[in-house]
Amino acid sequence: MSVTSTTIVTPQLIAFEKPFALQNGHILPRFDLMIETYGTLNASKSNAVLICHALSGTHHVAGRHHADDKYAGWWDNMVGSGKPIDTDKFFVIGLNNLGGCAGSTGPLSQNPETGADYGADFPVVTVRDWVNSQAMLADYLGITEWAAVVGGSLGGMQALQWAIDFPRRVRHALVIASSPRLSTQNIAFNDVARQAILTDPDFHGGHYTRHNTKPRRGLRIARMMGHITYLAENGLGKKFGRQLRGNEFNFNYDIDFEVESYLRYQGDKFADHFDANTYLLMTKALDYFDPAAEHNNQLTAAVSSAQAKFFVASFSSDWRFAPSRSQELVKALIAEKKNVQYVEIESHHGHDAFLMEDKPYIDAVRAFMLNIKV
Amino acid sequence: MSVTSTTIVTPQLIAFEKPFALQNGHILPRFDLMIETYGTLNASKSNAVLICHALSGTHHVAGRHHADDKYAGWWDNMVGSGKPIDTDKFFVIGLNNLGGCAGSTGPLSQNPETGADYGADFPVVTVRDWVNSQAMLADYLGITEWAAVVGGSLGGMQALQWAIDFPRRVRHALVIASSPRLSTQNIAFNDVARQAILTDPDFHGGHYTRHNTKPRRGLRIARMMGHITYLAENGLGKKFGRQLRGNEFNFNYDIDFEVESYLRYQGDKFADHFDANTYLLMTKALDYFDPAAEHNNQLTAAVSSAQAKFFVASFSSDWRFAPSRSQELVKALIAEKKNVQYVEIESHHGHDAFLMEDKPYIDAVRAFMLNIKV
Repeated sequence: MSVTSTTIVTPQLIAFEKPFALQNGHILPRFDLMIETYGTLNASKSNAVLICHALSGTHHVAGRHHADDKYAGWWDNMVGSGKPIDTDKFFVIGLNNLGGCAGSTGPLSQNPETGADYGADFPVVTVRDWVNSQAMLADYLGITEWAAVVGGSLGGMQALQWAIDFPRRVRHALVIASSPRLSTQNIAFNDVARQAILTDPDFHGGHYTRHNTKPRRGLRIARMMGHITYLAENGLGKKFGRQLRGNEFNFNYDIDFEVESYLRYQGDKFADHFDANTYLLMTKALDYFDPAAEHNNQLTAAVSSAQAKFFVASFSSDWRFAPSRSQELVKALIAEKKNVQYVEIESHHGHDAFLMEDKPYIDAVRAFMLNIKV
Repeated sequence: MSVTSTTIVTPQLIAFEKPFALQNGHILPRFDLMIETYGTLNASKSNAVLICHALSGTHHVAGRHHADDKYAGWWDNMVGSGKPIDTDKFFVIGLNNLGGCAGSTGPLSQNPETGADYGADFPVVTVRDWVNSQAMLADYLGITEWAAVVGGSLGGMQALQWAIDFPRRVRHALVIASSPRLSTQNIAFNDVARQAILTDPDFHGGHYTRHNTKPRRGLRIARMMGHITYLAENGLGKKFGRQLRGNEFNFNYDIDFEVESYLRYQGDKFADHFDANTYLLMTKALDYFDPAAEHNNQLTAAVSSAQAKFFVASFSSDWRFAPSRSQELVKALIAEKKNVQYVEIESHHGHDAFLMEDKPYIDAVRAFMLNIKV
């Protein structure tokens, strides 16, 4: 069954009806994961690839849900028939992470213990919790071992955690535009975003659904700021420069420059569809991720358990997860004599480059995936 | 009269009782400027130095207002007896810009046409408007020609505009950690800051004083975000790293990391003392500044009128006003055969480095100022 950009795909909700213990000690009585699959699991179940999403991603990786959908899935350029992650060869699974807002159990779900929405009561989950929940999904699907776990940004952190925590279950890990831990500046930006949401009067301590509202302003500001950090300075400059919307300055606070219009649009769109509590917990998962921390800050010790072959990629203009952060990981892997392929892609698309169509990058992923035996 | 960090200085309010036409066509019927002076104007009035402030600066450059003031003026390490801008040699003037919130006429002042606070009705002023108002101040003080006009960041833009607009009135211009115009990314960050303020429910269309409130949340977010951009990534890393406040993660949205505590403190402090309408108009003055624009985007043409000797300084880790932006100015000045001295200082303090005690930087300013004849 060929998977193209126009193939209609249907998500499935998988229920896990047993208690799930989180890293913070909290126990979820049950949970659902919304998933989407592409291609066919082979008889030996050796061709399964897990796609882990970043902050605002979902299970909808490729194809379309409806014939009239304006856009295909978020990584449709990477996943499909004949694409770098080839669904004619691999059985590819996308999922919405636990705590998300696209169908998996999260703050918008009903808390079985109270009957009301979780809202702010949904626990803060970690990258390790996600990996554990994804391992339960693998068990459910009868997948003992992933041919590959793949992710960009926060998704790359999950791929790395998988390789560390389940060395026998991951044959290849693709860690793209990611980092073994956030920098101080990353954490600082995340905290400003959270403060924008937490101090929005419509936040109501995270129980905004009970008040039939949502903290749109805060989400909007968080996304506008985040968006700047996803783009490269010179990419933004090339795209918008100092181009004015009108012929002259307004001398007020309406839109003067095109870049303002673009950012406000991005912020509005995000505030319309994303859940604020999910945004908060996703940024905390980012902040907390630090596999070296439990090994005396030795990243080498943290990765020593991994058995996967690694593909690490970074992008020259990515200042959110700079190439130097990927290099830290690569150095630790080499020091531990792991099999690692590293590519640094010249790009002016900043952090967002990992989602873009860029030939050297696409070709590098393609070559790596081609060499995987199933 | 020696000026030290503990010298008690007293600001003065200078009234200008005549209409002042702004670049946007608006006419202010009158205005006040709050100023502070250090040292003595010599008989030939040839030793006057104007200090132009940046976004959140004031007239209070050096010394203290009260014996129990915790801090001296904002550039006390640069201005005083025996300091690089030596008040034993120079008569130094600091002022609060028009539209400011530290005593000069601005949004918090009474609008003589209505009797109420200006608030949102205070017009958006430009760097050129500031320079024109400072020229009126020079006239008032009988200063035909500045020995030097000095500024960092937005203050540097004023020094440059002075040299362009009043070539016969500026003998030396010190343009520090500045830029001939903002980048797209700079404008984008400014717009996010403005949107945080404009969408704060306490903003009330800019007439918050009438509602006995102020948009503290928006100001706080704007400042937190701005603060990150003033600091270098590796400076922030050196100072805070991933240091936790407690022994373990909170798994909630309280302060986990020390950098969060620091940023929130900076945001709170700023929201307490700064005026939101002033913040808005200051960022617009930054966005609009672009002397090349009226010369077909030729910076060389824009600076061709200048007669001043220039001192341009940038800081290696300043990503808000990167060294490349100062270099653009230096290249244009050289192309126009102007006298220009450029120094790029190695620093991990980011944009804020221009306010810091850094020997190579301080020495460079000192040497330049020593060579000025009065």
